[in-house]
Amino acid sequence: MAQRHMHLGAFMRPVTIHTGSWRWPGAWADANFNFPRLKTLVQRLEAAKFDAFFMADHLALLNMPIEALRRSHTVTSFDPLTLLPALAAVTERIGLIATASTTYNDAYHVARKFASLDHISGGRAGWNLVTTANPDAALNFGHDAHMAHGERYKRAKEFYDVVTGLWDSFADDAFIRDQESGIFWDPARMHVLDHQGEELSVRGPLNVARPVQGWPVIVQAGASEAGRQLGAETAEMIFAAGGRIEDSRAFYADVKGRAAALGRNPDHIKILPGALVVVGDTLGEARAKRAKLDSLVHYESAIGSLSSVLGVDARAFDPDAPLPEIPETENSKSGRERAIRLAEREGLTVRQLAQRLGGYAGNAFVGTPATIADEMQDWLESRACDGFNIMFPNVPDGLDEFCGRVVPELQARGLFRREYEGTTLREHLGLPRPENRFFA
Amino acid sequence: MAQRHMHLGAFMRPVTIHTGSWRWPGAWADANFNFPRLKTLVQRLEAAKFDAFFMADHLALLNMPIEALRRSHTVTSFDPLTLLPALAAVTERIGLIATASTTYNDAYHVARKFASLDHISGGRAGWNLVTTANPDAALNFGHDAHMAHGERYKRAKEFYDVVTGLWDSFADDAFIRDQESGIFWDPARMHVLDHQGEELSVRGPLNVARPVQGWPVIVQAGASEAGRQLGAETAEMIFAAGGRIEDSRAFYADVKGRAAALGRNPDHIKILPGALVVVGDTLGEARAKRAKLDSLVHYESAIGSLSSVLGVDARAFDPDAPLPEIPETENSKSGRERAIRLAEREGLTVRQLAQRLGGYAGNAFVGTPATIADEMQDWLESRACDGFNIMFPNVPDGLDEFCGRVVPELQARGLFRREYEGTTLREHLGLPRPENRFFA
Repeated sequence: MAQRHMHLGAFMRPVTIHTGSWRWPGAWADANFNFPRLKTLVQRLEAAKFDAFFMADHLALLNMPIEALRRSHTVTSFDPLTLLPALAAVTERIGLIATASTTYNDAYHVARKFASLDHISGGRAGWNLVTTANPDAALNFGHDAHMAHGERYKRAKEFYDVVTGLWDSFADDAFIRDQESGIFWDPARMHVLDHQGEELSVRGPLNVARPVQGWPVIVQAGASEAGRQLGAETAEMIFAAGGRIEDSRAFYADVKGRAAALGRNPDHIKILPGALVVVGDTLGEARAKRAKLDSLVHYESAIGSLSSVLGVDARAFDPDAPLPEIPETENSKSGRERAIRLAEREGLTVRQLAQRLGGYAGNAFVGTPATIADEMQDWLESRACDGFNIMFPNVPDGLDEFCGRVVPELQARGLFRREYEGTTLREHLGLPRPENRFFA
Repeated sequence: MAQRHMHLGAFMRPVTIHTGSWRWPGAWADANFNFPRLKTLVQRLEAAKFDAFFMADHLALLNMPIEALRRSHTVTSFDPLTLLPALAAVTERIGLIATASTTYNDAYHVARKFASLDHISGGRAGWNLVTTANPDAALNFGHDAHMAHGERYKRAKEFYDVVTGLWDSFADDAFIRDQESGIFWDPARMHVLDHQGEELSVRGPLNVARPVQGWPVIVQAGASEAGRQLGAETAEMIFAAGGRIEDSRAFYADVKGRAAALGRNPDHIKILPGALVVVGDTLGEARAKRAKLDSLVHYESAIGSLSSVLGVDARAFDPDAPLPEIPETENSKSGRERAIRLAEREGLTVRQLAQRLGGYAGNAFVGTPATIADEMQDWLESRACDGFNIMFPNVPDGLDEFCGRVVPELQARGLFRREYEGTTLREHLGLPRPENRFFA
């Protein structure tokens, strides 16, 4: 069997996810509003040959209690479709994935902005299609209430159809630019979409030439039944939740199976779980680093969240003792059991558990470059993933450690590219360029 | 009296306006979709110390007959709010003005994108607030018909109030980022707008820190009664139509008078008419250059437009003879008379008149660097303007001629800066930084 190669995205918000990371000694606390620093970060990711810089988004302040919110460096962030063009201008190869909502946008704007970004970047754009989970966003866009989950997904599918249809407004050869005859483009090579649907009415054509990649790469992250189905139908990259490797294998098989059942080539959906990576010289040093990172999370906010998860008032517990036995309650059983199992497995105190969950509770690889590469290789080779969306515990140090120590280890094992082979995000990911649905 | 200094914007679409310009020998016909070329152009404008790169926009194909449209290099263009961040990343001082519609946008998106651009560019963003004149845009945004003129202006004013209110969501000192205490920002220094108006309902706050300039510079171009009034109330730069110097003086006095009557400092509205500039070694060479440029305009399309303007079928005339006497018709008298006067003044044939109007019919300075500087100086000193939004007959040559020959002439006369003195667009234009309406 040929060696599998992994794909790496850097999941940025636009910097780190972990809520304590900005307090790390030497961390660039202002990086999310400091363009020169973001430029440095993306250039270092490109030097490490990442497939893409992947930017999350929110259309309102994060909906968390004010005590946690005022300690959060992710409370605000640049608009991704404004930041990524700027990053495109200072890089040459790395892909640039922006999150944009199908619930709180016009399809014409979304189609045009991604098409523009794809031209400006020479074919490096990706669209993370989201339906927006934060109900506060509705209030910023003239709605009284958030659209229901099912309706959001119905609109998302129609929105996708319209955006991709608008990208196909012009044949790739429509623009002739014959200075002699004076013909700039050929109207016979233009298609007017004339979409009249349940959610959207958009005439077209788009007033931008077809993107370099045909279509920017379609990315999705939905984990619900509706989200998985939309992903199987339309996604080319999926940001999976991660979690236990056996759960990830099941997710991987499920989504690829759904895609195959729909007649798609399952290799044309790349599944990249999120992974927080903490690097140390020894396993112990890496774990201590993570413990220190978690200790920077505000305890009062964290213990409140833990109380919600457990369904009991955890403020009454001794913070520096192990978690006492927790009675069953009406609360979500899976969340409570995951927390209890985590505390047992790692021997965490109440405080440590609260801060772990308050910092970043998702999938993490904590170890030496070799043990981290072992885990990543196991995930890849056992078909739990096609690569990872890496999250850094802090910047710039955590990013530099991953790029400078883990990437070379992956390269030495033949698991990751040493040089870019293509120039577009599709080429990095091994995805085909879509045919124009209206023109041969 | 102290010497007046002029301000110069480069009005780009995103390159040239004249419909024959892409056919000029050596012209960069593909510049509107070629980022490396646009990067070169903006860097040359910055080297010439322009105040701003000013980008027009359309939200649909231009509504012109297909025979003209298929010969137009301005048929499509990048989204300005996607192109300008990329240009920000490859420049350091020049202002960046993007056109964005108040009719076909969400105020929250517009506020957020301009705030992001202002941060990314270090305070160089400007917003050309338009209500969108092309009725075809409505069909791309789910509307059956274009909003009426009065309603568009009413919405524009409310939209402006919301966007500027969102920019003021955070006090300038709201972001503390105290790594020791873990407090990232101060909720007491945040204002929730909670706007409930006739056209818009937007809660806020914006999830972006206050822009570097407080507010990006507000630009407008409306010439109607409603447009002038909105400009007097809110604009800091006005793109005026130009035309005859005496008309421009009257416009200048009218708008500055309206602003003063509203209690504004008239110096805080800069009026910059558009001007196509064609440079030659002699007056004759410049005129021949312009004639050649006009000759690249498609005659069949141009004669159709001339027929509409004159209210008669101009196809019946000898194209190479002077314009015959034109009877009065029901058509707009002012348009017809302007065309007849132009043909008389410059001794144009029917063909030349048609191609002139089909190419670019607005204000133009055609001559040697010295005669062009004379005209520009006369306009400035007689208070017909505070500077100009320059249009180039072709790129790169027309741009290089202006930057390399006219700018040094203006500098030698003390009319234009030799170096940037400030770093923000407001500083280039001599505009104050707005106070935050919610925080001292």
